[in-house]
Amino acid sequence: MHIPLLAAAAAAMLASALPAQSPSEIVAAAPASEWRAIAPDRLLVMDLPPDPRGAARRVVIELMPPPFSVDHIANIRTLARAHWWDGTSINRVQDNYVVQWGDATERKPLPPGLRTVAESGYLLPASAIARTRAADARGEAGRWHSRDAYAAWVGLHDGWPVASDGRSAWPLHCYGMVGVGRNVAPDTGSGAELYVVIGQAPRHLDRNIALVGRVVAGIEHLSSLPRGTAQLGFYQDAADNVPIAAIRLASTLPAAEQPRYETLATDGPSFARYVAARANRRDDFFITPAGGIDICNAPVPVRPRAD
Amino acid sequence: MHIPLLAAAAAAMLASALPAQSPSEIVAAAPASEWRAIAPDRLLVMDLPPDPRGAARRVVIELMPPPFSVDHIANIRTLARAHWWDGTSINRVQDNYVVQWGDATERKPLPPGLRTVAESGYLLPASAIARTRAADARGEAGRWHSRDAYAAWVGLHDGWPVASDGRSAWPLHCYGMVGVGRNVAPDTGSGAELYVVIGQAPRHLDRNIALVGRVVAGIEHLSSLPRGTAQLGFYQDAADNVPIAAIRLASTLPAAEQPRYETLATDGPSFARYVAARANRRDDFFITPAGGIDICNAPVPVRPRAD
Repeated sequence: MHIPLLAAAAAAMLASALPAQSPSEIVAAAPASEWRAIAPDRLLVMDLPPDPRGAARRVVIELMPPPFSVDHIANIRTLARAHWWDGTSINRVQDNYVVQWGDATERKPLPPGLRTVAESGYLLPASAIARTRAADARGEAGRWHSRDAYAAWVGLHDGWPVASDGRSAWPLHCYGMVGVGRNVAPDTGSGAELYVVIGQAPRHLDRNIALVGRVVAGIEHLSSLPRGTAQLGFYQDAADNVPIAAIRLASTLPAAEQPRYETLATDGPSFARYVAARANRRDDFFITPAGGIDICNAPVPVRPRAD
Repeated sequence: MHIPLLAAAAAAMLASALPAQSPSEIVAAAPASEWRAIAPDRLLVMDLPPDPRGAARRVVIELMPPPFSVDHIANIRTLARAHWWDGTSINRVQDNYVVQWGDATERKPLPPGLRTVAESGYLLPASAIARTRAADARGEAGRWHSRDAYAAWVGLHDGWPVASDGRSAWPLHCYGMVGVGRNVAPDTGSGAELYVVIGQAPRHLDRNIALVGRVVAGIEHLSSLPRGTAQLGFYQDAADNVPIAAIRLASTLPAAEQPRYETLATDGPSFARYVAARANRRDDFFITPAGGIDICNAPVPVRPRAD
């Protein structure tokens, strides 16, 4: 995608008048009113056993809000409430691709009440993101024109990277996004087997797998795991599987133990400046601003909540 | 970038007539005549101490051929011949970004004869890749149209991902690419400090840092290292730096110890089919082919040489 020329020119003029702010400085300066708390029932908390030095390993995943993947996310909440993942494991770590976890034996009974999801659930009607596309068409701050290899239009809708072909819309496989493992089509998976992207955005998976969220903290505990040496990056020896101590919805943890995070609103002015600054870096290190940015290179800022 | 519609249609017709080959099946079936041996003086071999289980950790980097980054690559050969990196360390591992190595003390004297490189070395004249652009303009197999967020045109030239704005050309920061660390502009670095990309392609670094090669084997020994917790992903505690046992040009190793690799020619028919298949996956798993592919999602196939 390309920043519109007018926005780029405005950014350049701003840069000549003021010291150039880096993307992280822009985020740090964003007012409280532009931050959105993530509800505790949208945070999935994965605890791994402590690392070899005894340090805690916690991964926090933000589940997508409706209308995205509603049925798969209902299943994930059911599985978490049943403590189904406790004692399962991370079984696959494929370099520049994904880390995947679930029941390595494939024989653990699933809890009752899981929904069966059709392939049609991979797509939303384009009307679901009409508000964002309309803001883009009006050339509002923070919107950009698409030059995307995979879709006619891409953007950030309510904080999530999406694409559209005018009829449908769908979320994107960017770094850190979490999806539902499945077998061959038309199986769409139950949600019991999940993976997170740890490499170049595998956008060819868009519309082929359900995305359900993204890692907002602790991805390094997954991305730095040893790579598996069997086919597709599965661990050759089951003894190498990384045990999962527990996966819980934050809302079911005691209040004092609930992680609290907030994200920068993607329809506000600070996010617009953040994207423009990432596309046209003017801090001292840079010589030639890029003049454009891939949507997966504009990760939505997330931080712990202070209160 | 997008595969031209005609090529996509041809691929679709092929798919209806024959069992669809996956990208890896196409690569496996490529004739020997389409593979290119990498000369031993273009392979840089990094040996780390064995991992905690005693397994060897070797990383092999292919240096770019002329006319890319000729002066920086001359420096890298000088540094390797001087055994300059032996006893230095990996000091920075930033998640979804880079792994970087060099002299953590910044006081180790450099060997004589290193060239000073100007910023102009980041760019080649567009004429340097004219052959590839001409093949693209003729619509030859394996060429594709650009829909790239960062450049008007992108493609694979002699095996390397490049972009052009019509006047200049430059290599791209895809996953696994190796570049020259530097301080603020206009310093361009000596080549003593190197990094490798381990996340979403940081294409905003294109034209701002010299690229010199790519990892062809063993990247997992770098991408799975613990992330640094100090600013920019440097290790907080110098004791966490990962020592480098040795870095050598393969051509200076005893013949029996020289790693031997070959890459698939990017101007041949098999590579064209590989890219088309990656852009339009038709193996059983896929429901909706992407219809396009980011240039950094078409890694050039590399394999050990059999002979």
